[in-house]
Amino acid sequence: MNKNEQDNSVDKNVQTLTEKMKAEPVASFLKMQVVELKAGYAKVTMQLLPEYQNFNGFIFGGIVTSIADQAFAYASNSLAYPSVATQFNIHFISGAATYDTLTAECRVIKSGRRVGISEITVTNQHDKLIARATGTTVPISADN
Amino acid sequence: MNKNEQDNSVDKNVQTLTEKMKAEPVASFLKMQVVELKAGYAKVTMQLLPEYQNFNGFIFGGIVTSIADQAFAYASNSLAYPSVATQFNIHFISGAATYDTLTAECRVIKSGRRVGISEITVTNQHDKLIARATGTTVPISADN
Amino acid sequence: MNKNEQDNSVDKNVQTLTEKMKAEPVASFLKMQVVELKAGYAKVTMQLLPEYQNFNGFIFGGIVTSIADQAFAYASNSLAYPSVATQFNIHFISGAATYDTLTAECRVIKSGRRVGISEITVTNQHDKLIARATGTTVPISADN
Amino acid sequence: MNKNEQDNSVDKNVQTLTEKMKAEPVASFLKMQVVELKAGYAKVTMQLLPEYQNFNGFIFGGIVTSIADQAFAYASNSLAYPSVATQFNIHFISGAATYDTLTAECRVIKSGRRVGISEITVTNQHDKLIARATGTTVPISADN
Repeated sequence: MNKNEQDNSVDKNVQTLTEKMKAEPVASFLKMQVVELKAGYAKVTMQLLPEYQNFNGFIFGGIVTSIADQAFAYASNSLAYPSVATQFNIHFISGAATYDTLTAECRVIKSGRRVGISEITVTNQHDKLIARATGTTVPISADN
Repeated sequence: MNKNEQDNSVDKNVQTLTEKMKAEPVASFLKMQVVELKAGYAKVTMQLLPEYQNFNGFIFGGIVTSIADQAFAYASNSLAYPSVATQFNIHFISGAATYDTLTAECRVIKSGRRVGISEITVTNQHDKLIARATGTTVPISADN
Repeated sequence: MNKNEQDNSVDKNVQTLTEKMKAEPVASFLKMQVVELKAGYAKVTMQLLPEYQNFNGFIFGGIVTSIADQAFAYASNSLAYPSVATQFNIHFISGAATYDTLTAECRVIKSGRRVGISEITVTNQHDKLIARATGTTVPISADN
Repeated sequence: MNKNEQDNSVDKNVQTLTEKMKAEPVASFLKMQVVELKAGYAKVTMQLLPEYQNFNGFIFGGIVTSIADQAFAYASNSLAYPSVATQFNIHFISGAATYDTLTAECRVIKSGRRVGISEITVTNQHDKLIARATGTTVPISADN
């Protein structure tokens, strides 16, 4: 692909994702909203509901991971569609509280033909750092 | 603590968790069930519902991570209660399909006074390996 | 490839590695020895020399990581040659002491056309668990 | 501790490390040099020698990990001395070549009483991104 073809391909990925986002089951289920999507970048928000609490009254780690994973999925697929996550590592930095609004931002830092690497930051409504994550994607194929 | 006091403390942790599990909001929300819990080990199951699908019709990574994280939380807290996760790394090995039943098993491989380390395996109803994860916990305190 | 061709290809990888191991610069430099190599599995040993100590007199984490990474590289390349590591996560479980002999064993748990995933265990001469690690590999190409 | 006592404690950590660095065995062995050290930040450089090559003629992953780990150790211990790494995750982004000079910069993003979290960037002499890593530390104690 030459430069123009690549740009068109990325524009098409962003457009495809934007269409697919509208009907995404898990986005509705977890009430996650994509507020920005461009080549190599996605920003997602989510309000923390009482049903996301764990046995200690803290917000469940899998919920914080989910919003990070959603930003990761969108940013990765904006450049290399379709891709799947093969690995994801998250550090939990501060606790989140019920009714907080979390924002996850993902930036792709490497987008190669064989592998993509991304970084994600999760903050709350006061810009407090809640979590940092990194992840690896590979292009989808029948046998990977 | 001597050996007897330690054993009693662990028994008490398992009992405390068993009580708390019954009313855990996120366990109800994601329909996760703890099927086994003992010192340093937890086994959790979850059926994959259509609302867990992502924009590509695959099961959302955050959902697979959630069941792994739930087993991790229970196994860790069975030995060192209360603890919180500070880090979690997951490798997605095979895709999971809607209506599959996933099982996550977590074993604590280190339980020290300052840090705990655990390993988690997620399989489907055919014993196919879906994901492998590892995580780090620290005891809860005001400022960690 | 049919089954026979695959078996021959793996045999050839193991043979290629066995040849290349003999002249590997970093293996000599760190005095790491491959003691077993077969399809999807490698076992490496290393004695911990005084020069591997850090500023606190502990064995440097990068040295423990190196023996794990060496077993990972060999096991991965035994199945999919040539591959490169794209990600590596390690948990340090117990400290290692000068003059201990460490053994790293790596097993490939997924070997797909697009991605490989491996698990590594590092123990000392008393079979004490020193570290656990996991890693991701992708086939080598010009632009990955 | 009040604010002044904390500042003095950090200054003392940086001073202690600076002294200990001078005689650190693994720093000499791998020819790693600390070029900057302040509270929560360390910068380390290393030239890649021919003996760091693996069986494919690439620089061994354990060597790239070592320079990242060294910056991580210094930055972490500048704030919370003595601490040890419990977990380390690295993403290899671009290959490094023999005779390249690598620079690793580490920033501590959380420094709590129970746990510390850091981020590390490794670049070459052309400011090309070679690797990104994150790690977890805990204070040293007899039984962690």
